[in-house]
Amino acid sequence: MNITVWNEYRHEKENPLVNELYPNGIHDLLADFLAKDGHKVHTATLDEVKHGLTNDVLNNTDVLLWWGHKAHEEVSDTVVQKVQKRVLEGMGLIVLHSAHLSKVFRQLMGTSCELKWREEGDMERLWVVDPTHPITEGIDECIELEQEEMYGEHFDIPTPDELIFVSWFSGGEVFRSGATFKRGRGKIFYFRPGHETYPSYYHSSIQRVIKNAVEWAAPWDTTIPVRGHSPL
Amino acid sequence: MNITVWNEYRHEKENPLVNELYPNGIHDLLADFLAKDGHKVHTATLDEVKHGLTNDVLNNTDVLLWWGHKAHEEVSDTVVQKVQKRVLEGMGLIVLHSAHLSKVFRQLMGTSCELKWREEGDMERLWVVDPTHPITEGIDECIELEQEEMYGEHFDIPTPDELIFVSWFSGGEVFRSGATFKRGRGKIFYFRPGHETYPSYYHSSIQRVIKNAVEWAAPWDTTIPVRGHSPL
Amino acid sequence: MNITVWNEYRHEKENPLVNELYPNGIHDLLADFLAKDGHKVHTATLDEVKHGLTNDVLNNTDVLLWWGHKAHEEVSDTVVQKVQKRVLEGMGLIVLHSAHLSKVFRQLMGTSCELKWREEGDMERLWVVDPTHPITEGIDECIELEQEEMYGEHFDIPTPDELIFVSWFSGGEVFRSGATFKRGRGKIFYFRPGHETYPSYYHSSIQRVIKNAVEWAAPWDTTIPVRGHSPL
Amino acid sequence: MNITVWNEYRHEKENPLVNELYPNGIHDLLADFLAKDGHKVHTATLDEVKHGLTNDVLNNTDVLLWWGHKAHEEVSDTVVQKVQKRVLEGMGLIVLHSAHLSKVFRQLMGTSCELKWREEGDMERLWVVDPTHPITEGIDECIELEQEEMYGEHFDIPTPDELIFVSWFSGGEVFRSGATFKRGRGKIFYFRPGHETYPSYYHSSIQRVIKNAVEWAAPWDTTIPVRGHSPL
Repeated sequence: MNITVWNEYRHEKENPLVNELYPNGIHDLLADFLAKDGHKVHTATLDEVKHGLTNDVLNNTDVLLWWGHKAHEEVSDTVVQKVQKRVLEGMGLIVLHSAHLSKVFRQLMGTSCELKWREEGDMERLWVVDPTHPITEGIDECIELEQEEMYGEHFDIPTPDELIFVSWFSGGEVFRSGATFKRGRGKIFYFRPGHETYPSYYHSSIQRVIKNAVEWAAPWDTTIPVRGHSPL
Repeated sequence: MNITVWNEYRHEKENPLVNELYPNGIHDLLADFLAKDGHKVHTATLDEVKHGLTNDVLNNTDVLLWWGHKAHEEVSDTVVQKVQKRVLEGMGLIVLHSAHLSKVFRQLMGTSCELKWREEGDMERLWVVDPTHPITEGIDECIELEQEEMYGEHFDIPTPDELIFVSWFSGGEVFRSGATFKRGRGKIFYFRPGHETYPSYYHSSIQRVIKNAVEWAAPWDTTIPVRGHSPL
Repeated sequence: MNITVWNEYRHEKENPLVNELYPNGIHDLLADFLAKDGHKVHTATLDEVKHGLTNDVLNNTDVLLWWGHKAHEEVSDTVVQKVQKRVLEGMGLIVLHSAHLSKVFRQLMGTSCELKWREEGDMERLWVVDPTHPITEGIDECIELEQEEMYGEHFDIPTPDELIFVSWFSGGEVFRSGATFKRGRGKIFYFRPGHETYPSYYHSSIQRVIKNAVEWAAPWDTTIPVRGHSPL
Repeated sequence: MNITVWNEYRHEKENPLVNELYPNGIHDLLADFLAKDGHKVHTATLDEVKHGLTNDVLNNTDVLLWWGHKAHEEVSDTVVQKVQKRVLEGMGLIVLHSAHLSKVFRQLMGTSCELKWREEGDMERLWVVDPTHPITEGIDECIELEQEEMYGEHFDIPTPDELIFVSWFSGGEVFRSGATFKRGRGKIFYFRPGHETYPSYYHSSIQRVIKNAVEWAAPWDTTIPVRGHSPL
């Protein structure tokens, strides 16, 4: 499968703490463990030409991962529209953590995608609420992260097609932290963990969820929708 | 509206602590605050003839509330089938707390309806995740109960039609604690709080949710389904 | 309730056949039967200043109805964003017929909202598939329209929160013709019938569905979502 | 994968027309094309001891297919409960045509599962409404069956988790003819076609849907739910 990992790649260059955790960028770590699963993985970042997402790259991407945080507004509308078009055609999309506010996700959801948040090192537990879902393969009933940014309800998203994880935070909040959405012929998975100052993407269960999600979101040879004028 | 509140009514007679909290039974308190809302409220309990649920009572009930815990198996299958039939015809059903294991709820869900539990006085917070829903009228973003029995995932229910509340427990669990289900022409609301040893049903927001749920579950003059043989 | 009926209002001025059917515009007929239901109804059209949708009008609208067809692109993005914002805040939205391609609907859905179509006078039957829904109050199992434009699957929308009507067309197609979507604190109903050259909006059951939809989509005093920074 | 095809196997022995179409029973044809897909396929029928569904057979079944029509009531409640238990544990279930009224399906749905029907050789078209779904792999936008029994709405099922096919019938009805339901850890697919007097199961696209459904319903190594007493 052809996977493209997109990362804003700013925190890692500007914040020594983040740089220490992810010296080559969050995209590099994500690409690394996905490549070990046998996928052909490409990376792309905000400051490349066209953010690294040329038509050629997007047209050859089966599943796109997206991590962004502080520079959502710098992503060009042309690229956002192209990503949306590709999702509607069947490309899978994995939206990670603070990418809930990315233009790409907001465009595909139609809502503000805002939420409640706090960076005070809450403990997080992600509980599985849909044990039929392939994204939970190899996952215990709960994934515990010692420290994470808190995201709390209300999370302004459309009703998910499937709710897979619900998070508990030590400070008293809950969050719909793993959810799927069908849009056009494409499948989208939003997955909450991954604040840049915590090592969540090194956690084996978090990696497993992302690997499962990539498999789940992959395009299949499903029905090609027919639309437009259809005379008798 | 004609409301029937059904209660097992055993704990209140056997446990002094529960008797002190609900001297005339949980049903009496529920009936009391619903009557103040202007409804015509009837009560029925397990040890009455036919558990107080004669055909006449059920045929004249718009919304039925159900609380049970330790004697689910004593409820006759005939009554269970009659309740199911009435729900499919359009009667609303509010399933409270430990009634998750009632025959009535399990029959209508088709699953085990089992869950995780602990009676150690956890604090509970019920967070609203669907702010469009009329059941949340007059409710803040969160209802806090100082002490309650813990119910945790995995809760073995079908995917709810609507998920309205998600609970946080101080011991570390989450729970889908307010959920709706359509069955036939009837509407069902499951609402988690209400362990017999805690005063949850005295809490004004809990009462408000139940009052809202009764309004929401009421039968409307909606389409009468047509089924059976239909020749050209 | 304060209702605003928005209409593109071009066909009626340009096509004599449409003008004969709706001499004062589709909005006028819709406004008329809604006013008879006791609502305070305002109308607005494309060629007015700001399309008649000033901030003042939108801020005072409980439910907005939208009909458009040939001039979707002339609607200003500023108005589209304001409508989206109002829906997320709680304003109801009823999207009629060819408004499936309106900027407002596409923005809120995140998909292309394209479909299959044919203007050859198919017979349409709208079958009720959700007999619990208040939008079906007073409606038989099926509404038959002698002639309508055909809309067929695949309709590129997100999975609806509720599917209420499915249409049958004499030429061989089906269509999800009555569907609800929650977005933010607002409720949206898409309803298929209403091609400008057919008298569908004069049909009593079509009027009844629209009247029911307005009641259903009305804002309630539900939970006000809290989002943003939330320190411990 | 270990597949068990269960068939009532009465029509084939009693009706010469059906016997000519399915000389060794509907189960034999289904088993045949599934075996060609590389599965290990077992068959079982009503008149065998325990209907051929011993604990040993069910415990070793990954996906169970069910066809029944005229003898639903002869299926023992013990077998029904065992099948339900196995589905909740993760066994896939494919419910075919008139098995909508089987005890197994009604038990898992909690509704009457009744519908409208007519045996007058309507033409049926099954339209794909979810082009993201793996069950549509290799399927065009529409499957046309020259003659089939008509099934029409209202179909008394819970809201499906996913609606994949909607049928159009030449006589004027529509039907939700391909739908998925999650129950416990198991996945269920209801698929409408397959009246015993028509050759629908010989149709290559119908076979393809059933083959896809078996793959989709297969148990995965997903999360094992934990329930019961959970002390601090």
